[in-house]
Amino acid sequence: MGGNTFGTLFKVTTWGESHGRALGAVIDGCPAGLPLDEEDLKVELVLRRPGRRYTTPRKEGDEPQILSGVFRGKTTGMPISVIVWNKDVVSDYYELIKETPRPGHADLAYIKKYGYEHWDYRGGGRASGRETVSRVIAGAIAKKLLSCLGVLVTGNVVNLGGEEFPSAKDPQEGLKARLSPFRVVNGDEGAEEILRNALKNKDSVGGIVEVVAWNAPSGLGEPVFDKLKADLAKALMSIPAAVGFEVGYGFKLASMRGSEARDKIVTEVGEPVLEGEKAGGMLGGISVGGNIRVRVAFKPTSSIMIPEKTVNIKTLEESDIRVPGRHDPAIVLRAVSVAEAMTAITLVDHAMRSGLLNPVRIEWNESCERLWRLYREYLPTSLS
Amino acid sequence: MGGNTFGTLFKVTTWGESHGRALGAVIDGCPAGLPLDEEDLKVELVLRRPGRRYTTPRKEGDEPQILSGVFRGKTTGMPISVIVWNKDVVSDYYELIKETPRPGHADLAYIKKYGYEHWDYRGGGRASGRETVSRVIAGAIAKKLLSCLGVLVTGNVVNLGGEEFPSAKDPQEGLKARLSPFRVVNGDEGAEEILRNALKNKDSVGGIVEVVAWNAPSGLGEPVFDKLKADLAKALMSIPAAVGFEVGYGFKLASMRGSEARDKIVTEVGEPVLEGEKAGGMLGGISVGGNIRVRVAFKPTSSIMIPEKTVNIKTLEESDIRVPGRHDPAIVLRAVSVAEAMTAITLVDHAMRSGLLNPVRIEWNESCERLWRLYREYLPTSLS
Amino acid sequence: MGGNTFGTLFKVTTWGESHGRALGAVIDGCPAGLPLDEEDLKVELVLRRPGRRYTTPRKEGDEPQILSGVFRGKTTGMPISVIVWNKDVVSDYYELIKETPRPGHADLAYIKKYGYEHWDYRGGGRASGRETVSRVIAGAIAKKLLSCLGVLVTGNVVNLGGEEFPSAKDPQEGLKARLSPFRVVNGDEGAEEILRNALKNKDSVGGIVEVVAWNAPSGLGEPVFDKLKADLAKALMSIPAAVGFEVGYGFKLASMRGSEARDKIVTEVGEPVLEGEKAGGMLGGISVGGNIRVRVAFKPTSSIMIPEKTVNIKTLEESDIRVPGRHDPAIVLRAVSVAEAMTAITLVDHAMRSGLLNPVRIEWNESCERLWRLYREYLPTSLS
Amino acid sequence: MGGNTFGTLFKVTTWGESHGRALGAVIDGCPAGLPLDEEDLKVELVLRRPGRRYTTPRKEGDEPQILSGVFRGKTTGMPISVIVWNKDVVSDYYELIKETPRPGHADLAYIKKYGYEHWDYRGGGRASGRETVSRVIAGAIAKKLLSCLGVLVTGNVVNLGGEEFPSAKDPQEGLKARLSPFRVVNGDEGAEEILRNALKNKDSVGGIVEVVAWNAPSGLGEPVFDKLKADLAKALMSIPAAVGFEVGYGFKLASMRGSEARDKIVTEVGEPVLEGEKAGGMLGGISVGGNIRVRVAFKPTSSIMIPEKTVNIKTLEESDIRVPGRHDPAIVLRAVSVAEAMTAITLVDHAMRSGLLNPVRIEWNESCERLWRLYREYLPTSLS
Repeated sequence: MGGNTFGTLFKVTTWGESHGRALGAVIDGCPAGLPLDEEDLKVELVLRRPGRRYTTPRKEGDEPQILSGVFRGKTTGMPISVIVWNKDVVSDYYELIKETPRPGHADLAYIKKYGYEHWDYRGGGRASGRETVSRVIAGAIAKKLLSCLGVLVTGNVVNLGGEEFPSAKDPQEGLKARLSPFRVVNGDEGAEEILRNALKNKDSVGGIVEVVAWNAPSGLGEPVFDKLKADLAKALMSIPAAVGFEVGYGFKLASMRGSEARDKIVTEVGEPVLEGEKAGGMLGGISVGGNIRVRVAFKPTSSIMIPEKTVNIKTLEESDIRVPGRHDPAIVLRAVSVAEAMTAITLVDHAMRSGLLNPVRIEWNESCERLWRLYREYLPTSLS
Repeated sequence: MGGNTFGTLFKVTTWGESHGRALGAVIDGCPAGLPLDEEDLKVELVLRRPGRRYTTPRKEGDEPQILSGVFRGKTTGMPISVIVWNKDVVSDYYELIKETPRPGHADLAYIKKYGYEHWDYRGGGRASGRETVSRVIAGAIAKKLLSCLGVLVTGNVVNLGGEEFPSAKDPQEGLKARLSPFRVVNGDEGAEEILRNALKNKDSVGGIVEVVAWNAPSGLGEPVFDKLKADLAKALMSIPAAVGFEVGYGFKLASMRGSEARDKIVTEVGEPVLEGEKAGGMLGGISVGGNIRVRVAFKPTSSIMIPEKTVNIKTLEESDIRVPGRHDPAIVLRAVSVAEAMTAITLVDHAMRSGLLNPVRIEWNESCERLWRLYREYLPTSLS
Repeated sequence: MGGNTFGTLFKVTTWGESHGRALGAVIDGCPAGLPLDEEDLKVELVLRRPGRRYTTPRKEGDEPQILSGVFRGKTTGMPISVIVWNKDVVSDYYELIKETPRPGHADLAYIKKYGYEHWDYRGGGRASGRETVSRVIAGAIAKKLLSCLGVLVTGNVVNLGGEEFPSAKDPQEGLKARLSPFRVVNGDEGAEEILRNALKNKDSVGGIVEVVAWNAPSGLGEPVFDKLKADLAKALMSIPAAVGFEVGYGFKLASMRGSEARDKIVTEVGEPVLEGEKAGGMLGGISVGGNIRVRVAFKPTSSIMIPEKTVNIKTLEESDIRVPGRHDPAIVLRAVSVAEAMTAITLVDHAMRSGLLNPVRIEWNESCERLWRLYREYLPTSLS
Repeated sequence: MGGNTFGTLFKVTTWGESHGRALGAVIDGCPAGLPLDEEDLKVELVLRRPGRRYTTPRKEGDEPQILSGVFRGKTTGMPISVIVWNKDVVSDYYELIKETPRPGHADLAYIKKYGYEHWDYRGGGRASGRETVSRVIAGAIAKKLLSCLGVLVTGNVVNLGGEEFPSAKDPQEGLKARLSPFRVVNGDEGAEEILRNALKNKDSVGGIVEVVAWNAPSGLGEPVFDKLKADLAKALMSIPAAVGFEVGYGFKLASMRGSEARDKIVTEVGEPVLEGEKAGGMLGGISVGGNIRVRVAFKPTSSIMIPEKTVNIKTLEESDIRVPGRHDPAIVLRAVSVAEAMTAITLVDHAMRSGLLNPVRIEWNESCERLWRLYREYLPTSLS
């Protein structure tokens, strides 16, 4: 079974390989009435785009084309098919190494599952990070829908190569991180230093992304299996290279005492709310109103010039492999956009499941527009 | 939408509230031919059961009854309905506190989502840890099915209140932890000390559970969204009080360099395999053959005698609440069985989705039986 | 894969065998706030109940017990588990015939799929018509929810053994059929005659059920695959013994000219509506507002005293089998309640998917109550 | 919720509008190892293609492009994205009539559900018969997979405008109908006469399609809700203009006596099998081995020159509308390919769910190839 569809009511299906003809997404379940054009998608793709300093020099220059589901500038409620053609694809190198699965990559798993003879080894095939272009496209639509619920989704790097970087304290800080080439709220110099060192050593570093859904409504998430924290965990752990996930204080809570670990319940504007974000804005896996805060850990880029042991799949001889080519010293930088996208997709799906977002028609008004425009205002000048 | 069903081919639906008449599970998609009786379920329920030292004194003494899907001692392929009647239920206390949602509990989220007037406040209702009885029942069936794939699933506490406890190095160590009242591989005295202190301070502690699926086949997990790591993340983060999840070295990888973070690929018995478990036995989210290792962080028990601020839901006045009653100083002890169960359920579902386990009929043979019997051999004498 | 769950947002899972300990349903996704008690379920079970003239004399006397999801007389939004214990079960006869699969019954299919050794042959096991008790229970809840949308669901027999009986022209006629032991709008004497003849010949007859959802809102159904007509087709063709399905004029339309086959569009109370019901109240598979009318054909009861050829599953010898026991001369009589139930379940699911019914909370008011009470007012006196 | 995805393991997602830029399908869950090229898809598209006598003169000349999931001529197990660009599109006419929903078409339903301002009125938009191009593409892949199970799927018209045409008695007859421009096994002259008359009267006719899956294995279908007959009903009733569905003798069984309605069970080649096809090859909704036979009724084309009453959506004034343009006098001719496709998709999905078709890898051999080639051998010369 394919596993290339995500969501219950807001359903995202993605397809495409790194070196195939194209890749894309079909977003099914978007209500009618959402203004949407290709520029909306590019705004988000641009932040994920390699070509910026310290991300791979492959010039993706992705031009998303909307093929269906939009008529006269607005969604119609029909599936939105978006395609991005693959350009600047050079597969020669992969011909040379196809018999030696790259350590840390999905190669060996695909060979074992589907058979070596059926494996598209070019650029990692379907397991390539390039697959996430489709997620970011769907995420842009999800973010736009969330604008109508008053929710803004931002992400930033809070750990790079073991060094900590600040969390966003408010939506402005979250948006500000969009302007940083390292997607940090503060500390560009420190981040650059870490990456420069990694590059110098022909090595790479891991990191942690924090995503916040600011001002989320209460009632998102279902009891028992489809808790919001569970579906966010699935969404974010499905990103390539993701190795850990936590909500609120996460793993830190394991070392705390019960008396320290609970968010107080207080009254605010005539409503009981949580004071603090230890629980990440959820109780019992259901949002209580306020910010939802999650973190995802990413391992370092596996494709580096430092060799590692592998095995020739045909001869079974062991050998060393190094992977030159165009690669990021830290995938975590690009993972920020993807983590934001998956968070937004999950929230939209749950908002529909909970009756908070009409699945058929949406009323796009000034206040939706105002929130959505914020994303555009925070774009690095070189890219906007 | 309810969200009380988990799985694609091996589907587990659970129902029931803490202080309702009964709770249960419907396991749909279990192949015909699996020997199954109520004793099989009790074996696993017993390890989760309160009544052991340092777990709540509520005498659940759960007696699961199989109502369908089993004929002449074997499953028929039809849905297996299991019921456990609630006994020893005293709800008086909850009448007293129903207007003041307990900090750290799901109360406030349920009140906001469903409305105070529709909330079953008795013992946490559906959000109670008692709900996990149904998961353990389904997990027992899943474990038994996995026996036919040669897979053993064990869990143990690797962190209690901030103190580390060893991982299981081999299946025997994993099984051995079943004999420990603290579900640790080694270090019962240390664990007891931590809990004794917590109790003395009327406080509670959090912890981390590690689950290993020993000797898992390659090919489990699907590309993109339904990666095994993603579905395990959802499964385990859906457990009450779970706040973090990681595979392999998890968050530690975020601070490592690429050159340290990759598992070598080596040849073993004529097959390329991973050396090491940095990636938790998966690449690209698909198992490569070998042990699958995940960890889940649990927050400390929220129900303690130390007061915390809350708000009266009707008057909106702030007040302090303390929650006496029968509670564990560390829910993580009981979470071990639940984490094992959710892991086993997820693996069975993926084994079916990948064509590794026939969804219609299973051949139960000596080697299945031998593996399954191991679980029974490792039962604390006071319980077996 | 089990296939024992129906629905996307309003999810019904059923379990249980004809001669097992019990059978039941778990209804997941019912919003909070619906008044519900066991009497509500019995009202509908009673009409399906054998024991009436010309239905099997097995005294099911089903007493549904609600085990979860209802608190202080109202639903809580949690899964509603309902159980019915099997009583009056005599399996001896099935021991005698278990080696000779009954023609027209599911026996041979189950034997081939699951293996003879895993087949619960007692009373047809899971394939028994008794399974539909669970459907009627879930259908009662669905009907009650539909009362809040102003929708009434009624069914009646429009063909019995080849003889036509009238359609219901309005809701009152639909309700009136509940009072008829033959579930016909008019023509009890004719129906009785047909059944008496069938019994006299030790034979059985088939028939056709028509179900109408009166006053359904527009907007139910999704484009392409999840059209309302498609999901109704699945729902109704999943009933045991169902062999055909049609909407509106159905098969008759195949013989008509385009100029005769279209419903006019006219203005009514300031709104464009269909005049006529040729299309069954749908266009493009989506309801347009008004009555939704479908029909299901049922084959005659297969268990009759007239022998038919079968084969001994072990010896492969051919032999004749006749099936005495307690059986209806026309299952179509009891199928009416089941067809109503499946229709109602499908409509509720689509109403939620289309944002027409809040999936979390429902406001039960006077006008809901008034509609719901109608079902109770039309109960045969001997049963009410 | 969109409803544009069909299937559980073999998942087909379609997108695209009649007059949009393109339309397509994403087939997720096709195992690796299936030889596949664009020619395979065209073979089936060609039979559905308008441009043949008595089907609309719109020159679709569809050229499917495979964009992903195929590498070196074989499927890889990744989602297969296929696109067909829309050409020869003229929307002017639809501008003229957009305010007057066409009787018999989906227009009014879409206007009511999504809002007039969000409705893509050009050529019926998503509700156009053109949508079925995507289904036929997915169906071609499904048919090819079924070749490896020894199953051939053919369809033919058995009723045209009220006149009966013969059923296919064997696979050869089924294939032979592919050569007929009217998709009948026998009787081209009669069929032509019917269509000529309809055209002469500027009218249209309905009809019935019969589809047979020859030599299907036993064990397809699940108990209770996901019976094969139920899923086939959904699949086939989801086709535009489908108004009725039946299995085996279908509605005819409603008028038969029990003693006539049962298929005998006999021994054939050492195995118990059904003699006859009254039940359509299924018992209890599960296939028993042999031919599966279903029928779907289609209403006449609604777009004809004979006027019908409608209402102006803005002024609410009543008026007459006639729909000139390029339309078939009988959509049933083109529905044959679509009905075959939906049948094949459903069977593949169930074959995977039942463990009869490996969901990960397929071994394509001579005997698969031989069966698949039969479809190509039966192509009208003008098209092949």
